Amino acid sequence: MPAIPIKDHIFTIVGGASLVGSATAEHLLAQGAAEVRVLDNFSLGGDGAIAHLRGEPRLKVIRADILRLPELLEAYRGTHGVLHLAALMTLNMDRDPWTGLDVNIRGAQNSIEAARQVGAQKFVFASSNATYGYGPGIKGDLVETTPFHSVGAPPAAILYGASKIIGEQLCRDAFRKHKLDYVVLRYSTVYGERQHYRAANALYIIETYDALKAGRAPKVFGDGSETKHFVYVGDLARANAAAFESAATDVAVNASGPEAVTTLELVRLVTEIAGGGPAPEFEGETPGKVRLTSGGAFRIANEEAAKILGWVPQIGMREGLRRLITWLEEDRRRNA
Amino acid sequence: MPAIPIKDHIFTIVGGASLVGSATAEHLLAQGAAEVRVLDNFSLGGDGAIAHLRGEPRLKVIRADILRLPELLEAYRGTHGVLHLAALMTLNMDRDPWTGLDVNIRGAQNSIEAARQVGAQKFVFASSNATYGYGPGIKGDLVETTPFHSVGAPPAAILYGASKIIGEQLCRDAFRKHKLDYVVLRYSTVYGERQHYRAANALYIIETYDALKAGRAPKVFGDGSETKHFVYVGDLARANAAAFESAATDVAVNASGPEAVTTLELVRLVTEIAGGGPAPEFEGETPGKVRLTSGGAFRIANEEAAKILGWVPQIGMREGLRRLITWLEEDRRRNA
Repeated sequence: MPAIPIKDHIFTIVGGASLVGSATAEHLLAQGAAEVRVLDNFSLGGDGAIAHLRGEPRLKVIRADILRLPELLEAYRGTHGVLHLAALMTLNMDRDPWTGLDVNIRGAQNSIEAARQVGAQKFVFASSNATYGYGPGIKGDLVETTPFHSVGAPPAAILYGASKIIGEQLCRDAFRKHKLDYVVLRYSTVYGERQHYRAANALYIIETYDALKAGRAPKVFGDGSETKHFVYVGDLARANAAAFESAATDVAVNASGPEAVTTLELVRLVTEIAGGGPAPEFEGETPGKVRLTSGGAFRIANEEAAKILGWVPQIGMREGLRRLITWLEEDRRRNA
Repeated sequence: MPAIPIKDHIFTIVGGASLVGSATAEHLLAQGAAEVRVLDNFSLGGDGAIAHLRGEPRLKVIRADILRLPELLEAYRGTHGVLHLAALMTLNMDRDPWTGLDVNIRGAQNSIEAARQVGAQKFVFASSNATYGYGPGIKGDLVETTPFHSVGAPPAAILYGASKIIGEQLCRDAFRKHKLDYVVLRYSTVYGERQHYRAANALYIIETYDALKAGRAPKVFGDGSETKHFVYVGDLARANAAAFESAATDVAVNASGPEAVTTLELVRLVTEIAGGGPAPEFEGETPGKVRLTSGGAFRIANEEAAKILGWVPQIGMREGLRRLITWLEEDRRRNA
């Protein structure tokens, strides 16, 4: 049965000590899950990401590595649903493509294999709008059938996107060959409480905020008209749950926020939340910095997710940014 | 220096006991190469592929595996140019995606790493028109900037195409980080003497010929108007040499034959060479068979290769098919 109720069921979140993992664990527990297993090797994820859930008896933290299949076979036993988040993104892929391709591809193979070996009922694979690529080809509505654009994009971004395409196809292959039910969610750039510093676009929010608070002008590349389409982490937690709960299988859908924003709008919103600050400074290319560009205004369409999973994002940029920055300030006070 | 003369230089052909490898080795030797190293693990390639070169003192056959970096470091020492052919294609990728992704991705990583460690002057990477994908998006002119289409394609074909995209980007990454000069050639479907049976489209030629010779009607999927764009192996051998000899670096170009053909034209040509036979039979989908479909008529443009490498394919389908089938008959007589 491809539909798994959250209540009284067991879920494993792979790469769970993370932004999306921690929010999803919290959500699944709140929805009455019998047990949520947070599996992580803690190489990128940290204890801090799941600190707010400490003491919850239904939460189980498992230190394991997705490159070691035996550890997954052990950890997945008895699980009803697997959420596969573990991956290296573009910035880390640039630094270490050997680990990046291993984790994103062999890791996905191991995870899918373990899920079907233990008889898990559904596999939810976190993919990315990176499967549409970057560069001038990216404009207008990005829908689930949009092809992968790579001209004009940095190698690491293409490696990342291609590795996610491979992960998706490994799911399709397992469905065809082994009847493993799955849903692929193509996340747009995630942001929110427990934000990490590894995603180029989300990092930009924090860099902008920090510049403003320090009295420095935030930097805007080009004329600031380039679009970004974020999704609030709490909305994604619900999307992940919806992927388990719905009868949908053998499908890939976008999971993006209510609206796209231009860089200038984003800077304006952050400035508003920061309580003012210097006007942005416009600049050209920074050598050695991995930038993810598009061909102009684009929107990552999420109508398909509404239709197939009944999921609609609820948190707009202003509210989401407010939550992120409130958390950021609290987190820094705690760690000061 | 990104330009390497063939004469008096040393070349290593990785995955060389093969259709393209054997033709390229022969061509490089004829052009006066000091030494040609054919490296293969002989898991797919066979001794037969290089039997015609036996006794040539400048040919060195090295049994090694691209998944073992130390073997490559040893084998590449002193080489001026590396031609990287080793890969699993769609049919084998479907049977064994674990080996397929290892060979195509980790294999490319190892090979690039070894090439730069030994100070090779140029790396030629055999990519594929599979980097444009398959399915309804594939029509018209496929140029080097065409994005990757995957909707409607079998998982294994997408895995293969994505693994080749990754190989290309690993070359770009090595050029940026380590100044390794490279040329990517995106081969279209190769055919010719020493044809193997592992490529879906080239296999179709042999199946058609065998059906005709046995008095059976050759099978045509759909209405036969779908296009294929082949390239004759001897033309590719010259393209590989041109990639070494030209000053071009950090570039990816198509290498396709003089013309695309429809399935019906292909069957007509094979029927002509077979000396007649039953008219084709039109059929629908065969369950379980991996088919590579397109959105209709397409052509893999090769103008860029002419401009950048000075390479133009010379052998048309009629002549190329005649050579393939002449070889096939001789080979079967030899092995009978």
